[in-house]
Amino acid sequence: MFREGVLGTMQGPVDWVAVDWGTSNLRLFGMDPTGAIAFSRSSPDGMGKLSREQYPGILTALLGDIEGPIDVLVCGMAGARQGWMEAPYLDAPADLSRLIDGAVSPEMNNDISVSILPGVCQRDIGAEDVMRGEETQILGLSALDPGFSGLVVMPGTHSKWALVDGPVLKRFSSAMTGELFDVLRTHSVLRHSFVGELEGEDRDIGVDAGLDQGLAHPERLTATLFKVRAGALLSGRSPAYCAGFLSGLLIGAEIGGQRDWIGAGDIPLIGSVSLSALYQRGFARLGQKTRIIDATDATLAGLKAARKG
Amino acid sequence: MFREGVLGTMQGPVDWVAVDWGTSNLRLFGMDPTGAIAFSRSSPDGMGKLSREQYPGILTALLGDIEGPIDVLVCGMAGARQGWMEAPYLDAPADLSRLIDGAVSPEMNNDISVSILPGVCQRDIGAEDVMRGEETQILGLSALDPGFSGLVVMPGTHSKWALVDGPVLKRFSSAMTGELFDVLRTHSVLRHSFVGELEGEDRDIGVDAGLDQGLAHPERLTATLFKVRAGALLSGRSPAYCAGFLSGLLIGAEIGGQRDWIGAGDIPLIGSVSLSALYQRGFARLGQKTRIIDATDATLAGLKAARKG
Repeated sequence: MFREGVLGTMQGPVDWVAVDWGTSNLRLFGMDPTGAIAFSRSSPDGMGKLSREQYPGILTALLGDIEGPIDVLVCGMAGARQGWMEAPYLDAPADLSRLIDGAVSPEMNNDISVSILPGVCQRDIGAEDVMRGEETQILGLSALDPGFSGLVVMPGTHSKWALVDGPVLKRFSSAMTGELFDVLRTHSVLRHSFVGELEGEDRDIGVDAGLDQGLAHPERLTATLFKVRAGALLSGRSPAYCAGFLSGLLIGAEIGGQRDWIGAGDIPLIGSVSLSALYQRGFARLGQKTRIIDATDATLAGLKAARKG
Repeated sequence: MFREGVLGTMQGPVDWVAVDWGTSNLRLFGMDPTGAIAFSRSSPDGMGKLSREQYPGILTALLGDIEGPIDVLVCGMAGARQGWMEAPYLDAPADLSRLIDGAVSPEMNNDISVSILPGVCQRDIGAEDVMRGEETQILGLSALDPGFSGLVVMPGTHSKWALVDGPVLKRFSSAMTGELFDVLRTHSVLRHSFVGELEGEDRDIGVDAGLDQGLAHPERLTATLFKVRAGALLSGRSPAYCAGFLSGLLIGAEIGGQRDWIGAGDIPLIGSVSLSALYQRGFARLGQKTRIIDATDATLAGLKAARKG
């Protein structure tokens, strides 16, 4: 883990720059020759806000204080069709140790050399799926924990469940859990139940009740969701309880509906630490051990491993 | 079934007026002494747009051409706490033949006498639920099909599954299926898959594929939802197919996750005919027979039955 400023100051010589360019923001890390972070910077200029022409200028501005030629390796949505330059998907099953072979290099009119890593897709009819960014984290896991084989779960807006064997991504599936939470909380009738204080002890109680319900009956999700509203109306459930219940219910249903993916051994959870902790509570209710790996640590390890090729 | 104008012309003497006052609009029926519809009117002044003070004026304006005293019986959201006047919920199990006993009467300063029917709630912790309007349709079913006992399914924004025995509502559960379709289509990443022509043969193919998926694996809903987007990206699924698939998937998951509610005999489906037809296709895939009852027919039969008391 590291501290980060919007415009961090360089602390030493920079060997190359690692960039995680996502939909809603970008994070950039100057790496020194020993592999340590020399500085980090972030910007709200995510792919979702940018036209193709804006990328070179934004990157150049963020790296303006670096002298001489510099290599930049990018993962994430910058490589999407609607991003900077499309880096076509690799097909799963995919050997991520050769991720760099699928990289594309947009032209720059300065000393900065950019490579954008591809995402991975799964074309099987009925099990179609895509990822951009998580493949780099899986490669990072194979560097942080060489020889790991089994299920990896990556909580997020579109959480990923992936079966891996070292750097080989065998099969994966995305769940819309995080986005469902956001759209239901913001746009559905459930929003009336979230007016007021959303934190506190009640939230924890709600999370556990939601996890239990989702794990026990993932098949009833469309019906149980309405219980958030009815519980507020009839049983005086607080906004904090309702918010906790909704997140627990969705996470519980995601885990409960995919229990057949779980094999032997601990499950690495790669994501934000606070969200991953909720998944950890869910898996623990099944007696399943997990370990949390911070998403940024995994991304950086993956970009380093990809650069070595 | 009947034809309706925004302001229909009276065709005979009016005995009383039936009103279905919902969240997004209201529908009003002048009933002649034989029990037939003398006229019908509708207005976009649903509960969601009104303050308490506006109801009397809207009703008076819609009935302005009727001479002499007139009785008006209202069901639906006008009786909610945030509506015209709260008609407190009856508790399930509830004998709906005495629904009128729970009616409330807001004051009017003219010859119009108004009664608003109550909704029904279910207070069991963890199975909390509410309905306003559907209880009147269930009472209507007991008039249209005396002696019916079993499962009734009421497709809609918040579809209801209810176990009834004649006019007795024993147990029920709401599913957010219709609202999930709306918020996902409008506000989630899936919206990108619905740009273009949404009707046509492809929509039907999508509905069937979605129904099959939802019925087979209701527990995987959070994951299967993402396949709408990935199928569009990778398998060239058309917007019409995606729209059909999403509705089929959600309806299939609703039905598949609650199969244990299904008993012997045909299932009455009370709702809009087009939406009910999708549920009919879903149940048919399980070999389950259904019959569609137009929601307005059921509401009118229910208001008539409630008036007789």
